[in-house]
Amino acid sequence: MHTKPGQPVLVVGSVAFDQITTPTAESGRVLGGSATYASIAASYLAPVNLVGVVGNDFGESHFNRLRAHPIDLEGLQTDPSGPTFFWSGIYGENFATRETTDTQLNVFEHFNPTLPEPYRGTPYVLLGNIHPELQHRVLDQINGKPFVAADTMNLWIDISLDELNRLLPRLDLFVLNDDESKMLTDESNVILAGKRLMGMGPDIVVIKKGEHGSILFHKDGLFSFPAYPVTQVKDPTGAGDSYLGALVGSLASRDSINFPALKRAIVYATATASLTVESFSCDRLEQAGREAIEGRYQELLQLASVN
Amino acid sequence: MHTKPGQPVLVVGSVAFDQITTPTAESGRVLGGSATYASIAASYLAPVNLVGVVGNDFGESHFNRLRAHPIDLEGLQTDPSGPTFFWSGIYGENFATRETTDTQLNVFEHFNPTLPEPYRGTPYVLLGNIHPELQHRVLDQINGKPFVAADTMNLWIDISLDELNRLLPRLDLFVLNDDESKMLTDESNVILAGKRLMGMGPDIVVIKKGEHGSILFHKDGLFSFPAYPVTQVKDPTGAGDSYLGALVGSLASRDSINFPALKRAIVYATATASLTVESFSCDRLEQAGREAIEGRYQELLQLASVN
Repeated sequence: MHTKPGQPVLVVGSVAFDQITTPTAESGRVLGGSATYASIAASYLAPVNLVGVVGNDFGESHFNRLRAHPIDLEGLQTDPSGPTFFWSGIYGENFATRETTDTQLNVFEHFNPTLPEPYRGTPYVLLGNIHPELQHRVLDQINGKPFVAADTMNLWIDISLDELNRLLPRLDLFVLNDDESKMLTDESNVILAGKRLMGMGPDIVVIKKGEHGSILFHKDGLFSFPAYPVTQVKDPTGAGDSYLGALVGSLASRDSINFPALKRAIVYATATASLTVESFSCDRLEQAGREAIEGRYQELLQLASVN
Repeated sequence: MHTKPGQPVLVVGSVAFDQITTPTAESGRVLGGSATYASIAASYLAPVNLVGVVGNDFGESHFNRLRAHPIDLEGLQTDPSGPTFFWSGIYGENFATRETTDTQLNVFEHFNPTLPEPYRGTPYVLLGNIHPELQHRVLDQINGKPFVAADTMNLWIDISLDELNRLLPRLDLFVLNDDESKMLTDESNVILAGKRLMGMGPDIVVIKKGEHGSILFHKDGLFSFPAYPVTQVKDPTGAGDSYLGALVGSLASRDSINFPALKRAIVYATATASLTVESFSCDRLEQAGREAIEGRYQELLQLASVN
């Protein structure tokens, strides 16, 4: 279906090492970060320009995992002054809760995203989940009027609300989860929260509800789509980042952002995120390949088809 | 679309008075009960034979609310020895919790469902949420092999698990909510719970997830459908009963129970339940009429349509 390489996607976010404990397993120190998941997910559908920073512990084997995909690494800085951003957390029973047990910003603490000249005109921009101030700085370096999508998290709503509110009018697409949408709008109804968010800047809003799917808010209407029926969740870390990566990758692959293209992109996003949660790190996502994503895309069309 | 009256549906359950307190309002004493909601919902799509019991406080105005629909009342016993079943409850913030504050079984305590002779061959049977022992007694009076659908609740899983487990093989369709499905199967994953339930008797299982829609489990596949995007929930009482009523009514209306017919029935069920939650009692459901249900049916098709 996608015979052309499509338009490139600029992905900015964290590249990290994670250490994750779930009710059934322990990951050890594994590759993670919002930009890592988003880049690999997007790269199945469109070429990626990656902007991020890694430290002196980011080895060849890690670079090679990114190089295995159409991901340009010119924008991935290596800061030899310290180790890569490290995060560790524990998930509770049925992944209902997540507790951060350690955060070491390391070289990410002084990360100032700098776009290589060739990246500045990238027509699709994905601002992964990082401080809104850094998301602003990326947009300040952009030439032209790309399609801009961004993610966020509860932490930024708590501590950087002003920067986040100033970011919203700069976005075309804002993707966040249901709890975050309620927190940011003070609306307890997710439909009202989505509509309220459209009035805060972005033309398009997607609210993710985990195992309950996601809802697209667009001037042409609402679109509600279920999650893939995953039965073996190993680790939900990175699901949201993969979702956004595939979503923007799908739009870029056909260079179309109308309502039907957004719906199709949400099906790709749902398919891709469902692979991510089936392993620690990006293991399953990397191993799956485009064919597995297309398979789940077709399964999802069946799952949601009334006729 | 539905020009023929369709096959009749036998509905058995409670007819009650409810008194409900929500975070924003108080209902006063209003018409309720699983059979009331299910009958009115089903009656928009197929004629209904109602089996239940009311007491000496059930007035002409209440009978007239049922008579306004194609609901046969020969099977609705009046027991003059006491008042009608009464239930009162309080919903917490955002309807996340529900606490029963009073239950007066009254004439329902000695209710023994008796099917009038003409009801015994009704080809579609809906066993509303009542004690599984009563659900068994209804099936014991049935002639032939009707399509049998049943609902349940956490209370029966707690106190009548054996009767409920014995009921499951007698059902074609079992409808329950996600928490109940997990409780009954000891599976924390709703997809696994649904599949497990199919192995416990019913060929068809529907798991309801409230605002997150519902999932159909069928030998031909899964079907996941979103909820209607309700923005003004006034009182969720009766939503599940209305859902099941419309579901079985839709199947009966075309006398078809294959996978496509079940999917269509779920869209009708979703549309109908969304009306119920917009008022106390059956007010909105009664006032809406078939046209409003068809309107929401079409809106739901749009909401979930990828193309």
